[in-house]
Amino acid sequence: MSLLVIGSLALDTIETPFGKAEYTLGGSATFISTTSSYFTDDIRLVGIVGYDFPKNEIEFLKSKGIDISGLEISKDKKTFHWHGVYHKDMNHRDSITTELNAFEDFNPIIPEKFRHSEFVCLGNVNPEIQKKVIEQLDKPKFIMIDTMNFWIEGKLKQLKETMKLVNMMVINDSEARMLAEEDNLLKAAGIIFDMGPEMLIIKKGEHGAMLITKELLFSVPAFPLDKVFDPTGAGDTFAGGFMGWLSRTKDLSPANLKLAIVYGSVMASLAVEEFSLDGIRNLTKDKIMGRFHSFRELTNFESVSL
Amino acid sequence: MSLLVIGSLALDTIETPFGKAEYTLGGSATFISTTSSYFTDDIRLVGIVGYDFPKNEIEFLKSKGIDISGLEISKDKKTFHWHGVYHKDMNHRDSITTELNAFEDFNPIIPEKFRHSEFVCLGNVNPEIQKKVIEQLDKPKFIMIDTMNFWIEGKLKQLKETMKLVNMMVINDSEARMLAEEDNLLKAAGIIFDMGPEMLIIKKGEHGAMLITKELLFSVPAFPLDKVFDPTGAGDTFAGGFMGWLSRTKDLSPANLKLAIVYGSVMASLAVEEFSLDGIRNLTKDKIMGRFHSFRELTNFESVSL
Repeated sequence: MSLLVIGSLALDTIETPFGKAEYTLGGSATFISTTSSYFTDDIRLVGIVGYDFPKNEIEFLKSKGIDISGLEISKDKKTFHWHGVYHKDMNHRDSITTELNAFEDFNPIIPEKFRHSEFVCLGNVNPEIQKKVIEQLDKPKFIMIDTMNFWIEGKLKQLKETMKLVNMMVINDSEARMLAEEDNLLKAAGIIFDMGPEMLIIKKGEHGAMLITKELLFSVPAFPLDKVFDPTGAGDTFAGGFMGWLSRTKDLSPANLKLAIVYGSVMASLAVEEFSLDGIRNLTKDKIMGRFHSFRELTNFESVSL
Repeated sequence: MSLLVIGSLALDTIETPFGKAEYTLGGSATFISTTSSYFTDDIRLVGIVGYDFPKNEIEFLKSKGIDISGLEISKDKKTFHWHGVYHKDMNHRDSITTELNAFEDFNPIIPEKFRHSEFVCLGNVNPEIQKKVIEQLDKPKFIMIDTMNFWIEGKLKQLKETMKLVNMMVINDSEARMLAEEDNLLKAAGIIFDMGPEMLIIKKGEHGAMLITKELLFSVPAFPLDKVFDPTGAGDTFAGGFMGWLSRTKDLSPANLKLAIVYGSVMASLAVEEFSLDGIRNLTKDKIMGRFHSFRELTNFESVSL
């Protein structure tokens, strides 16, 4: 049931139409590991923070049962800082500041005891780093990577090398079209499969997500909410729920992959209801299952013939 | 099981990246009535065409069991003609020509024998005409109207008068936001409910559709296709499948409204696979049910607890 999570840990300043939070906990690895902690016990985090990273947030991660022995703390640099401002419709945001700080030196050495991890979730970082991580691992059962337009545009060759080594990639719809140079998403998926991954999650923001494998097509909407407070981390929370469920069940059957996507969507919908990580800091099983059942209400229907 | 359909009949010239069709059968009433003919027998069409409307297309409508005794044929004007060109991504189109012709004189008098229709589907026409139609009817069980930005911008007062008289409205997401002056779709739906309809279908193009009532929230994706040949009439086909299923079953329960939405999506997905009306001219029950089951595969999942 072991899940290795690699990615960024950050202190974010976020402005949305509903308020502002300064230097609040963020980063892909933070969202992924916190989310997956609700599904499985053996979570291993590898990342880097600065000397200014709050001690209580390290305690928070530990309190979630996350093994942080792979977390490096820089002695002379600050933590990765991102400052983003969301527009009124929340689907668009401007990045005001991106200070990599300690994250610039991120060159993950996977601790010996983590190298046998069965499930691996590589957050959206430089594909060269993703590859270096994968090369240190001892035959994991399942590797997922996240990526984005920045790497498709700037490190395409390296990204394609990394893609050869992974089982699944998560990417948004416009990025999938860009990577495949194909507008039709099904055809784009086929082209991306030829690059390596045998499964693809295509994120569509407020329109939900799709899972495409060679034998399965599954679509889940974003949960309609009357208030989206802060979309930051929605994609990473989704990935955390997905990988958390897979790690918990170790079952890659189509029916179980569907459930993984649903649990990813459940967690993302809970995350965006509050600022930064607040929506997923202290969840109960009842709250998660309540949203799961609401998703079933939202999407499932009987089989009734003409 | 009677369904009254009012709307346009047109001859469309359509250009998509895959080809061009000239003066091919189109119009909201055409798509709606043809689609619903697969679900129920007693369909009544009210509309107007020009002297140039092809006789074989009238025979086609009759062959679908549609009662066309409310179809007026203008002696001195041509049929409504629309010429549209779709862009490469198929989500956008330019209208090259819109010649109303005979449709300009459309002032529907509902034949006496149609006035007791139980279900009524009013295609996207001037809301003043929609209201005039409704006022001629004898207490139908269920009235649905379609509308668009053109009427929201130009005939808002009249549209609001019509909305007071209907059970359901179908509208796309950007138009719902425009009408309600609210970005959040759930809140927008609440505002639109206060204007009259107790149910709303929000169309989201390639992202599917949502059904919102005071007690139900249901989301269905557009069926992922590797080739969308021609999106013309997708919304009307959707409405035809929805109203066809409701007329067939006469059941407004939440579970059955869900099925109506699914059958609407099924029919729309079959329509866009071919040019204009071709995708729905000659369907079999097997083909419709095949797509229905594919939709279940695409969206349904088990209930498995954490």
